[in-house]
Parts: sequence; structure tokens; C-alpha cells
Amino acid sequence: MDYTISNRMSHLRGSAIREIFKYAADPAVISLAGGNPNPELFPGEALADIAAEVLRDQPVTALQYGITEGYTPLREAIRARLARVESIGTENDDVIVTSGGQQGIELATKCLINEGDTVIVEEPSFIGATNAFRSYGAHLAGVPVREDGIDLDELERVIAKNRNVKLIYTIPTFQNPMGVTMSVDKRRRLYQIALNNNLLILEDNPYGELTFDGVKVPTIKSMDTEGIVLYSGSFSKILAPGLRLGFMCAPRTIVQKMVVAKQISDVHTPMLTQLVATEYMKRYDLDALIVKMRQNYAHKCKTMLDAMDEFFPTDVTYTRPGGGLFIWCDLGHGLDTLTLSKQAIEQKVVYVPGNTFMVDMDRPTSALRLNYSTMSDEKIVEGIRRLGIVFSAALGQ
Amino acid sequence: MDYTISNRMSHLRGSAIREIFKYAADPAVISLAGGNPNPELFPGEALADIAAEVLRDQPVTALQYGITEGYTPLREAIRARLARVESIGTENDDVIVTSGGQQGIELATKCLINEGDTVIVEEPSFIGATNAFRSYGAHLAGVPVREDGIDLDELERVIAKNRNVKLIYTIPTFQNPMGVTMSVDKRRRLYQIALNNNLLILEDNPYGELTFDGVKVPTIKSMDTEGIVLYSGSFSKILAPGLRLGFMCAPRTIVQKMVVAKQISDVHTPMLTQLVATEYMKRYDLDALIVKMRQNYAHKCKTMLDAMDEFFPTDVTYTRPGGGLFIWCDLGHGLDTLTLSKQAIEQKVVYVPGNTFMVDMDRPTSALRLNYSTMSDEKIVEGIRRLGIVFSAALGQ
Repeated sequence: MDYTISNRMSHLRGSAIREIFKYAADPAVISLAGGNPNPELFPGEALADIAAEVLRDQPVTALQYGITEGYTPLREAIRARLARVESIGTENDDVIVTSGGQQGIELATKCLINEGDTVIVEEPSFIGATNAFRSYGAHLAGVPVREDGIDLDELERVIAKNRNVKLIYTIPTFQNPMGVTMSVDKRRRLYQIALNNNLLILEDNPYGELTFDGVKVPTIKSMDTEGIVLYSGSFSKILAPGLRLGFMCAPRTIVQKMVVAKQISDVHTPMLTQLVATEYMKRYDLDALIVKMRQNYAHKCKTMLDAMDEFFPTDVTYTRPGGGLFIWCDLGHGLDTLTLSKQAIEQKVVYVPGNTFMVDMDRPTSALRLNYSTMSDEKIVEGIRRLGIVFSAALGQ
Repeated sequence: MDYTISNRMSHLRGSAIREIFKYAADPAVISLAGGNPNPELFPGEALADIAAEVLRDQPVTALQYGITEGYTPLREAIRARLARVESIGTENDDVIVTSGGQQGIELATKCLINEGDTVIVEEPSFIGATNAFRSYGAHLAGVPVREDGIDLDELERVIAKNRNVKLIYTIPTFQNPMGVTMSVDKRRRLYQIALNNNLLILEDNPYGELTFDGVKVPTIKSMDTEGIVLYSGSFSKILAPGLRLGFMCAPRTIVQKMVVAKQISDVHTPMLTQLVATEYMKRYDLDALIVKMRQNYAHKCKTMLDAMDEFFPTDVTYTRPGGGLFIWCDLGHGLDTLTLSKQAIEQKVVYVPGNTFMVDMDRPTSALRLNYSTMSDEKIVEGIRRLGIVFSAALGQ
């Protein structure tokens, strides 16, 4: 039997990151590759109590079919939190609960992007999103990211140069994979450029709450007077990713079509996980949990940066994130970090080579992504020390 | 702002069934419309104990990211159960855990069907599946269903008449919406026809375990020596639908591509629900729970059929299911059950008009679907009595 795969899926590879996970399963391996939150911060006991209680007291709600747009009390809690924490939400916006932030991106793409339409992405960007766009036949156009976010001059050139541009995808805060944050001024100008060109913005903000110093830059969605921004949020980095809970806040017309697409995709997000998150937010202090996460990640990020300052060759450059989970590191000198990753694996350290995050994944890059959120301080330092040896050798130092 | 919806989604409506749910939320309404299992049969207490225990004892597994193909012990339990209960699974097959049976159908469509390809569906058929095919631009070709399953002569004509036929979608056992079961002989011949024409079969079997007399007809997948059958299963009707747990057993090449598509869709099915189902199967007797369901639904089905015999006009025809959740009823005489449903709603009874399940949903039909699984015996009888009045009036009797 000839299993002919559809055109839209035949050229798509799985995420290299999830392939690298196979090495990371070896406990001797120091993984700086994942994007997992620190499991020590999961409120397991609290969630255990809540899960037992909702299944005992509300078995029908927790176990029967639910409505596609999401459990109403959860949607209300999300709406209230978005208004309070991010100044997001107008009367023309609606909220849909999704099975992780990823699903919101996939459903929005299915509902908005025709084959051959152009989606503008930051380069580098999150492979989960770029693969979602690819899987619906979108043409990807990359725009470089600077220390203060996307390059706006280049953005305007890319808009002018491409046909059927529909959407700009951005992670403005603690960007994946770069860890950089777009300035407020750039956010305002990006919004104006999108408006002038009749484009939608998909603002993906899974890391925004993980600000080390507590300072938050206004979201682009909070500036959205004209209804052109789709805002994607997630509980993965502020509660627990295994629950697969995310949400999108977007113009009602778009959310309504996403509800139809979600009905086709998984009917609704599981009721148990929705009830558990709703009750957690009602009974516990999610903000206090997030403060603990900020402190934990700030410490781990500093530990990694200090080790990089000590062990990496001096002309290697890297970002100094103010939050989130990632550091972006550039070795320069035309080195290929995909090739080098094999030497790193021999030293039992894994990272994600930069090509993973590019529009053209086959083009070698000298950059790579490092994650500090899951390893102990000792392993972070030891991992960076070993990478320092590999990189120094590669640079002939 | 002009929110232009993609071509693939712009013409798709939400399921009428889920619209009808809005009426069904009124407790005075007798709903014979849904496809919900009876919530009295949910093992809420057992699941409460298990959920608390897995969150307390395995918080990292339950709350961290997991692998896309599904929690390994759950995949193994599914594989073992499929082999034992349905004689399914060869060394060339693999199993992927999905977020409900619906997701398996959606992912398979995304991976296998190009725009304009023909998917052959039973007519009437499950709207969740037909909408999944529509959402990827498939051309649907309907084949009528008889008391003993799909009409094979018509199937061969439809195969010959259509271009780029890729897939036959069938619910051979306790079909949704008709409640009929394909004979073993027809299953063998259907398999052979698919093989001769180089077509895949998507066998959807969410109701197969709900056999009233315990007798099971062999699945088409159990005859699949050549690797052309994708088998879709679900925990929704044998455990609880709110968990959103399903699976697909299919040739490994196809499952591997579905894993890539699932990574883009929701990364993985929630770990908590996967762990809960795994532990339930390990500690409790799922087969015994299913026996209780069979008895419960057999009783309710008989209650409804007896009431139909009593209250419906004599020339109204209907199926007499041997299992599952649905009875299909035909009023004949060119009546339009969509129009009549408004009169039924005035009598506070809801059913699903037959056009919902057709390839051309705009063509009026004289048939309708009735469900008996969630209402009390009293409400079933009273609902059928009221429908009898509406139908008698419409037929001038």
C-alpha cells in the first residue's frame, strides 16, 4: 500500500526539539534544550485536593461533554485576569479556551490563512507556530529580531515585497528563542504599521508573566482599539504545561469561527483540567506562585549567564533576558551549531541549534538556544563549562 | 477591519447538534438530541481517588510536558485491549493517543486528504467527521446505508464515478445516526473493494462496545492483513467524554505523520486525563462498567422503541438498534424534519433533523435521529408521546 501523505503535511518534519528530548531522557545528559518549566514549582498537592473534590462534587460537569468555547467560569476568570494583569479586552473581543496555547495558533491559522498567503514571522521564532503556518500552506517571510524586538524597517520592506500578507506573528515579550523584549515604542509603531497595511497581529505571550524584576511592558493587545490583534496566552508557564490549557482573546468574529474549527478538532478541552485550573485560581494565589517562578528563573538565568561569562570564548555573544526561559547565543565565524550539537551530545550536553527557529531550516546558523529553567544550578554551570570546551575548540581557542 | 475567513472554513457551520444543546439546557426540555452517555454511569468516586493519587505521587509526570504520541503505559493498555477485545493490531500498526476520537479523524484528514480529493461517506453519517473532511476541502460523496450497512453496489458506482477517491469513512457498528450494524459479509466485501481500488478505510468505532446482547461483530480492522484500515476508538462512550480521550490504531507510516500533525495541534493530550484513564483500567474492571452500560442502554432503547410503537403513526419507520445510542426514524411523505423540529421545540422536545447528517445539508429530509441514553424512562416516554402528536398532525392523522 502506498500511503500518500497530503501536500500540506508531506514536507513537514517534527520539531527537532522534541527529537532532542530523546537524548535528554538519559539522566546523565544535561539538557539545556527544552522549554519546560521547573517542575519543583508545580502546585501538585493543591491540584490533587482540587481534582478529587471536583470529581466527587461535580462528576457530571467534570466528566460529561462540555461546550466548545470553554467552561464558562474559566473563560470569565481568564477575562478578568487579562483585564487586571494585561489591560486586555474590549466589548468586541471574546475568549476561547484552547488545549494549550499551541491550539489557539493552529485554529487561528486554519480559520484565517489560505494556501499561499504570507505570514510574517520574527526570525528566529517559535517552531510550533511556524510549523502551524507551514501546515496550512502559508508562505513564511522572516524579519530579523534586534535587542529591542523586531526590525521595523525590514518589516516594512517585507510587507511591500510579499503578496497576500495576512498576519504578523510576534512574541514581543521574552521572545522564544531569543529572550529579548520589544520596546513600547516599537510595539506602538508595529501596531500602526499593521493597521496601515490592513494586517492582523498574532501576539503570542506565554512568557510575559515571567518578568524577573516584576516590570511589565504593555502588551500590543492592550493598544488594540481597532480590533486587529489576536492575543494568545497559556497556563503552561504559570501553572503546569501537562494540563494543556491556553486561551485566545481576539475579535469576536474570529473567535466564533475558531469555535467551529475547535469543534472539528477536539470538540472541547477536557473538563477536568478546566475545572482544576478554575478552582486553583479561585482558592489559591496564582500571582504569588508566579512571583516564586520569577525569582527561581531570575536566579537560574543569572547562574547561566555568569557561567557563560566565565567559560565561553570572549567573542561569543548572547542575550541577557529580563525574563522568560531562554538565552540566545551566537558563536559567529560561520560555525554550524547543528554540526556542533553532535560534539555537545558526546559531552552529554544538549541545546537547540538555531536553524530550528528559521524560515529556511536547512540553512546552517552559528546561533543556538539555551534554556535554564529545569536543570539544577550545578548542572547549569557544568553544562555551560562543557559547552565552553566544545565552542572554544570549534573556534580554535 | 475586514476579517476574511479562509476558504476552507468560510462555508463551514457549527454542528446543529451543538446549537440544539442551547434549548436542551432548559430543564423543562426533553432532549432526545444529544449523543451524551448517561452520566449516572460515570465512575466519579474512583476517578476522584485516582486523580488525587497521581497528582500527589507523580506530580511531575502528571503536570509536565509529555510525549506527543501519548503516555506510554496508556498506549500499551490500549494496544492490549484492542488485541484482546477486537483482535486488532499487527506489527505494522501503531497507536496514537488523541484528544477524543474526533481529533484522530481530524489529524488523519489533515495528513491524508488534499483539497479536491474525494472522501466517501455513509449517508447519513456523523457530522463531526464530515465537517473534518469539509474543513480540508475534501469532496464528499455519499453512499446510502441499509439495515445491514453501507450499500456496496452503490459504493462501487460512487468509486467509479468520482476522481481522486482516497478514503472510505464508515461507522460499521451501531452507526451514528442510524443505529444499524454492517454484516460480517459486507465488511469482508467492503474491505476487498477498498483493496481493489487502492483506497484507505477509516473505521470509526466509538459505540462497538455498547452491544446490548454482548455479541460483537468483527471489526474491519481485524481483517486488515494489507494495512489499509485506520481504526478510531474512544473512551467517551465507555468511560467519560469530558476526559477527551481517544486513540487511533493505523499503519505506522500514517501514525508517524499524525504525530507531527498532533504536535502542531495541541502538542500532546493532557497528562492528567491520560494517567487517570490508565490507572482506572489497571485498578478497576472496565469490562464490568461496560456491561452496566450495555444493560442500561438496552433498557432505555427498549423503552423508547415501545413508546414509538405506541405513539407514532403506523407508517413511520425506524431502526431497531442492537446497541449504541441512536434510533433513526423516517416520517416519509416528503415531510421536512427541520421545519417540524420547531413544532417539537414548542412542545419542549428536541431531536436532530436528518439533514444534519447528509452531504448536502440544505436538502430537506423526512428522517431524524433520536437518542435515548440521557433521559429518564419517564421523560423518554413523554418525549415520544409529544413527538407522536406533532408527527401525527403533520401526517394529517
